[in-house]
Amino acid sequence: VRIDGTDSCPDVLQHALERGILDAAHADLQQAVADADLVVFCTPVDCIAAQVLGAAAACRWGTLLTDVGSTKANIVHAVEGKLPPGVVFVGSHPLAGSEKHGPEHARADLFKDRLVVVTPAEDEALSRVAAFWTALGARVETMSAEEHDRALALTSHLPHLLASALAGILPPQWRGLTASGFRDTTRLAAANPALWTSILHANQESVLDALDRLGDQLHRFRQALSSGDTNLLEALLYQGKQVRDSLRNE
Amino acid sequence: VRIDGTDSCPDVLQHALERGILDAAHADLQQAVADADLVVFCTPVDCIAAQVLGAAAACRWGTLLTDVGSTKANIVHAVEGKLPPGVVFVGSHPLAGSEKHGPEHARADLFKDRLVVVTPAEDEALSRVAAFWTALGARVETMSAEEHDRALALTSHLPHLLASALAGILPPQWRGLTASGFRDTTRLAAANPALWTSILHANQESVLDALDRLGDQLHRFRQALSSGDTNLLEALLYQGKQVRDSLRNE
Repeated sequence: VRIDGTDSCPDVLQHALERGILDAAHADLQQAVADADLVVFCTPVDCIAAQVLGAAAACRWGTLLTDVGSTKANIVHAVEGKLPPGVVFVGSHPLAGSEKHGPEHARADLFKDRLVVVTPAEDEALSRVAAFWTALGARVETMSAEEHDRALALTSHLPHLLASALAGILPPQWRGLTASGFRDTTRLAAANPALWTSILHANQESVLDALDRLGDQLHRFRQALSSGDTNLLEALLYQGKQVRDSLRNE
Repeated sequence: VRIDGTDSCPDVLQHALERGILDAAHADLQQAVADADLVVFCTPVDCIAAQVLGAAAACRWGTLLTDVGSTKANIVHAVEGKLPPGVVFVGSHPLAGSEKHGPEHARADLFKDRLVVVTPAEDEALSRVAAFWTALGARVETMSAEEHDRALALTSHLPHLLASALAGILPPQWRGLTASGFRDTTRLAAANPALWTSILHANQESVLDALDRLGDQLHRFRQALSSGDTNLLEALLYQGKQVRDSLRNE
């Protein structure tokens, strides 16, 4: 296996070469992909589709393109029907990562036992992309881009938005009164704002739906709290606990 | 030092004796406190005041009473002016703990480097209660019960409510699509529902205020998202990141 890479930032390429993450670095995307069997796009979700189309023009017959973007419909549909013959794109989203970024945070076991969602494609392309992810230790599940985006709006995009909203309203004088609860609940707020702006924007409709669902649930809490209905309050807390407890061993 | 304890559940007392956490166990509260220099109430916030008053009647002159409740105004005001002469109550709230409970999760370093908020009292009682907490490794800060409750509504009670609301709206078929982001943001939802019902209820007014502040911020996110105002969206995410990053090293 030989790994070529390109990045908009020369320092990142230099760092990746020095750590042995890349075998060769390129300043130009089309040059980087010219000999590739597989190309993986790890860029913001509002850049991926244009880069896929730009790279595809320079790819040889049989090259498989995929990505790691947190949204799928905007990417898959922008690429659909526009690739040269013999070049295939399959959307991927590995449910792994952290609020950190850059080659200095690279980990060989990042995808171990994690789920990777891939979008529908013809059998050969699907099995090639699945083989790539399973070789890195992941499990693979195929799902339509739309279903993926609806689910991830609730399981990932809304938690980011929420963590950020909660952190954003903390007055400076109360920072010393936070403990591990506040820190865990707001951990995602430390993520890259530009990256998450494009994710939330690209999945606008489903994130707004998820925000409405949460708004309804917060309204139930508010009603229970303001009316002093402790039975309802406890039932709502119990509902959350049941779900959270069910996630422990999955 | 000799540590006597009482609990409504005999199994808990048995377990605490076996692990050497207690020197003696009592079925009766008044019996347990009869010889005490210091009594620490670790019970739900809606039980503490009545237990303090019940215990105080059996205490000898000079006994200092404190608690670890997550709300302070409801407790401090219910006790105020009702204690027998020579018995003093100072409210405490150590900002430490987890969603786990019971003597099997006891840790000697639980309070190390943590903040304990104590409510105003006369100098001698304050310095005795502060000496107790600092001996366990904590830092101590005095704050009015009202200010404590307003701050903790935002830094602790709202995060619990929010974690629970988010966990509660996850449909079963999407549980497999959660990753560490969802799990961290909802960790607090695993806490004891009965315990948190009494905390939220006891601090009703401030929690409703905090919920309103969050509602306003979520409304800003919604406006930015639905109007496609990516500059505003990024500014809101950046605001959250700045606060979150400032908590790292505190």
